Amino acid sequence: MRVILLGTGAAGGIPLFRCDCAVCARARALTTHARRPCSALVEAGGTSVMIDAGRTDLADVLAKRHPAAILLTHYHVDHVQGLFELRWGRGEPLPVIGPDDPDGCADLYRHSGMLDFSPVATALETFPLGALRITPVRLNHSKPCLGYVIEHEGGRLAYLTDTVGLPDASAEYLAGNRPDLVVIDCSHPPSEAAPRNHNSLIQALAIRDRLQPARTVLTHIGHEMDQWLLEHEDELPADVELGWDELQYIV
Amino acid sequence: MRVILLGTGAAGGIPLFRCDCAVCARARALTTHARRPCSALVEAGGTSVMIDAGRTDLADVLAKRHPAAILLTHYHVDHVQGLFELRWGRGEPLPVIGPDDPDGCADLYRHSGMLDFSPVATALETFPLGALRITPVRLNHSKPCLGYVIEHEGGRLAYLTDTVGLPDASAEYLAGNRPDLVVIDCSHPPSEAAPRNHNSLIQALAIRDRLQPARTVLTHIGHEMDQWLLEHEDELPADVELGWDELQYIV
Repeated sequence: MRVILLGTGAAGGIPLFRCDCAVCARARALTTHARRPCSALVEAGGTSVMIDAGRTDLADVLAKRHPAAILLTHYHVDHVQGLFELRWGRGEPLPVIGPDDPDGCADLYRHSGMLDFSPVATALETFPLGALRITPVRLNHSKPCLGYVIEHEGGRLAYLTDTVGLPDASAEYLAGNRPDLVVIDCSHPPSEAAPRNHNSLIQALAIRDRLQPARTVLTHIGHEMDQWLLEHEDELPADVELGWDELQYIV
Repeated sequence: MRVILLGTGAAGGIPLFRCDCAVCARARALTTHARRPCSALVEAGGTSVMIDAGRTDLADVLAKRHPAAILLTHYHVDHVQGLFELRWGRGEPLPVIGPDDPDGCADLYRHSGMLDFSPVATALETFPLGALRITPVRLNHSKPCLGYVIEHEGGRLAYLTDTVGLPDASAEYLAGNRPDLVVIDCSHPPSEAAPRNHNSLIQALAIRDRLQPARTVLTHIGHEMDQWLLEHEDELPADVELGWDELQYIV
């Protein structure tokens, strides 16, 4: 199973508009250090699936790719905004599978165009998608939000953003079905104050301690987290690494 | 006064995702023929103002520009979606002046970040913005929607999209204050059926006949309109021309 990070940024991305911090200045000079809206593509056995749709250049991203579906973690705008243009496209309907959120985002449900929002994902109800097995797990966020466990031929990815900590049922399921790779919300640097809607590095590492995956990749990185990493990246445990846009992992 | 068309496309833009019509195929091959979300920049006497914010690369568009404000015609997503990332930027608040629409779009009002949505525009109430004089005019659309008359040293632009026809009060004001340049919604090719929320060429030309501007530029072009123009562009009156992204006009 190939996992491609399409974006690793928190809301607003990196660089932030008119922000002159070291990290935003670096990302403006070196696009390799920019962070686009948090999203990923997973491919195995001839099936591909996209997770989240916040990149606004989705038509280009999908020019040579035909994912069987888009999985949405939730309907915050930085995770769905690429759908606003995409929906007016032509051709076969594209299934968008997300949590049961009656609000959706803006007018996506009312004017769904070529997108099919009817398939709803339910926590811990596994379903097949081509060659993949997908199990949604509930996350802790300010809107109904799901992570996804994606399995293919014994390889297991857990994609867990946006979240602060994990609901017990999700943590138990994941600990009992140990992922090889965890891609996890780490929006904030370590701080004494408990964050509200997103993990800091403290919560992200606590989840890694509980789940014991072979490898953990941090995503949904805010610019303060990137600033902290400028001085502390070598303090990350050997099995925990920083995600970057376009990095690929084999599970 | 310099008027720069930042985008001239209807919702979905051109090319539409996975559309293989002649016009979408051409735009995919020649980016000069692509149409991004309908928007413009107006500059005069050291003041600049942006009209609508649907381009999702606004941070790049504004890298070397400091508009005094963003004027919004309305809160449909293809006219505001660039604000979703921009709002998380740093620095001085950026005024966003639009119609009184209690809904706004998605969570823009609730999480406004660096954007200041408090200034509300009211039809036919002229206000100054630096070196510019701005008069909102009500339009006919499926959401509260305003066009803008922008004046500087005797030059007068009327930017009139999204609309189908014009409310009488707006048409009377514009006929009595004849614009030099009208930039107008022309989403659809001529058809017998009256369109609901956008002008076809028939309504666009009827407005031009009533207002008698020196020059009329068509914008908010859908791909069926562009297809029609492939065979009929020379049928446009001499004072009516097709807008394209990045074209500039001096008023």
